[in-house]
Amino acid sequence: MQRKDNWLLPEGIGEVLPEQAAHLENLRRKLLDTFACWGYQLVIPPFVDFLDSLLTGSGHDLDLQTFKLTDQLSGEMLGVRADMTPQVARIDAHHLQHDGPTRLCYAGTVLHAVGDPLEKSRSPMQIGAELYGHAGLESDYEVIRLMLEMLAISGLQNVHLDLGHVAIYRALAEQAGLNQQQESELFDVLQRKARTELVELLAGFAIDERFQAIFNALPKLNGGREVLDKADAVLAGLPCSGMIGAALADLRGIADKLRRDFPGLSVSFDLAELRGYHYHTGIVFAAFVPALGKEIARGGRYDNIGARFGRARAATGFSADLKVLAAMFEDADSARQIVYAPHGEDADLLEAIRDLRAQGEVVIQQLPGQAEAAAQMGCNAILENQNQRWVVKPLV
Amino acid sequence: MQRKDNWLLPEGIGEVLPEQAAHLENLRRKLLDTFACWGYQLVIPPFVDFLDSLLTGSGHDLDLQTFKLTDQLSGEMLGVRADMTPQVARIDAHHLQHDGPTRLCYAGTVLHAVGDPLEKSRSPMQIGAELYGHAGLESDYEVIRLMLEMLAISGLQNVHLDLGHVAIYRALAEQAGLNQQQESELFDVLQRKARTELVELLAGFAIDERFQAIFNALPKLNGGREVLDKADAVLAGLPCSGMIGAALADLRGIADKLRRDFPGLSVSFDLAELRGYHYHTGIVFAAFVPALGKEIARGGRYDNIGARFGRARAATGFSADLKVLAAMFEDADSARQIVYAPHGEDADLLEAIRDLRAQGEVVIQQLPGQAEAAAQMGCNAILENQNQRWVVKPLV
Repeated sequence: MQRKDNWLLPEGIGEVLPEQAAHLENLRRKLLDTFACWGYQLVIPPFVDFLDSLLTGSGHDLDLQTFKLTDQLSGEMLGVRADMTPQVARIDAHHLQHDGPTRLCYAGTVLHAVGDPLEKSRSPMQIGAELYGHAGLESDYEVIRLMLEMLAISGLQNVHLDLGHVAIYRALAEQAGLNQQQESELFDVLQRKARTELVELLAGFAIDERFQAIFNALPKLNGGREVLDKADAVLAGLPCSGMIGAALADLRGIADKLRRDFPGLSVSFDLAELRGYHYHTGIVFAAFVPALGKEIARGGRYDNIGARFGRARAATGFSADLKVLAAMFEDADSARQIVYAPHGEDADLLEAIRDLRAQGEVVIQQLPGQAEAAAQMGCNAILENQNQRWVVKPLV
Repeated sequence: MQRKDNWLLPEGIGEVLPEQAAHLENLRRKLLDTFACWGYQLVIPPFVDFLDSLLTGSGHDLDLQTFKLTDQLSGEMLGVRADMTPQVARIDAHHLQHDGPTRLCYAGTVLHAVGDPLEKSRSPMQIGAELYGHAGLESDYEVIRLMLEMLAISGLQNVHLDLGHVAIYRALAEQAGLNQQQESELFDVLQRKARTELVELLAGFAIDERFQAIFNALPKLNGGREVLDKADAVLAGLPCSGMIGAALADLRGIADKLRRDFPGLSVSFDLAELRGYHYHTGIVFAAFVPALGKEIARGGRYDNIGARFGRARAATGFSADLKVLAAMFEDADSARQIVYAPHGEDADLLEAIRDLRAQGEVVIQQLPGQAEAAAQMGCNAILENQNQRWVVKPLV
């Protein structure tokens, strides 16, 4: 088929033009350098992978978002990555096999076959960091701090942090005797915060009235620190309340550290917030900024995802869309000097150009027959011969 | 289907682990920074695209190498890019629409459905630069110089440059009256330098004996500068010899400039070398290094590829596989200090860590319960409290 407009791109698939690309690259470097300073090492997972590797531990939603293609060489089904976390977990589990904590980071395009109704893009540039091999609160807190650092470097102000804990829901679902199908349906309704649907769904489950009431109450456990005390009351006295108590203690622990280290940060709790792709197991978190209707970064604990690749490991991490961060980032370095040099092959001229470039200056050399003046070429300075010397003069 | 080894990757699809990834990223930055200093602006074309955009002006070989997938949203056929040049040409033709020369560069993964028998990888990381809007020899020479600069930065020594000119073959094929099918078959045999096949193929064509002889002679026009004089003799007196003479003059012009600016560079000429993907129209070139059995970088002129996107423009450029360059690159910065800090939440300790990181130092903070010592964590220094002050001490 031949479309008329050959320059059109598929819906939600974007290309990045020079000005934005320089901006994006600048932020990408700043963030990866910061991750490196915290000990997070860059890895580059492959763009396509065996489908079952990509969908490890994840749910139906990730499957729907994954572009599938057939590998001509093996006949197997491949997928284009829609999320890099399972790939990074595999690198930790299989290739690195460290005993101690392993810190990894990444930045790369992922593709979403369908896209998110809230955001038009089907080609986000996922950037994130993951910490493997430590199950304590301190590793959760380290990745939350690093996420906040990423947002600060991106120039985002008035960040709001929302905390949840998936273990509370998991413990309740198990205790209530939900089967996997029911747990998954309920999970979906809770994620969407569809309260009427929730009541109807629960009415159809053959579960204890106490649990009906608890699940109906979950979406209301949402707000400031008082939510944790309310949860103590609502969830007390259950056989699983030891586990739930531990989860609530984790949330209090994180909240205390945040209050100490980020006294101005707005923090809320949402015990029905279960985040993304089903693989989470512990504390989950998301950051919001006023300018954006949805979360700008998200993460959480997802222990044992590596089991599929031969080694279960504790794991926690976060990710964001670098394109979204870059759209909000204000770049201090953008007023760069760009020098326009005349055409010519004199050794002196070529040497002057070479020297300027070696110092990191941008020099565009005119090509013969080219009519465009310096300003039309986007330059703000020229290289001029004065008294047998080549000197840079700013354009005024 | 479930494979037993869930950590396996599809054949020829690679992931890049920490040490190599840092190395690759380092070289990527150095090269993009160099391209920027020459006025080449970064663009980021999309990873998937409408199939007909990706295959613009290219031949059957690129089609075979392109992974296809169906877009659920539009029902149209998409491809995963196997070459970024047509995408960059579209950006120049449609989005930028400058009148003067436009310089663009890029770096990103491309995928090859089948791969190259000579190299195992199906996921090279293509890095390259393109110059649009100038048809003269000077722009060819600018991109050749930039390619040589890229190879020098990558630390490659004993680079050999091979030059050809596609217009010679195109003029001969037209003059000989070859139809498109014949031109394409002959092109393929010449590319593969299959001389016996060449004789057989030509015998089957109903063309003048003079052209039989010329096409059979083309693969022998391969060697030092004397090849250009031989070509003058072999190709003289044809009705198309004006065009051929101009092409030979172009090659002499480039050779003269190279001799002046790179006196130590080994240069050869190959008039049967037609390079890659059928879209070339003028001077083509490839760089070789002794350690590698195939070309390490390649490029050439491909005027008018943008016509498909609404604007025909002169164009020339080059590309290489960043992974291959990085494998040969020796990194001077690799002996970086990595500091191991003890666990703790004292304000002094946290401040010391923050300060070190702000200076660009890598600091990994121990997590509680973690047994691994600094060396096991890959660190070569520790942060230690001496007389109430936190100081960095190298590990010995």
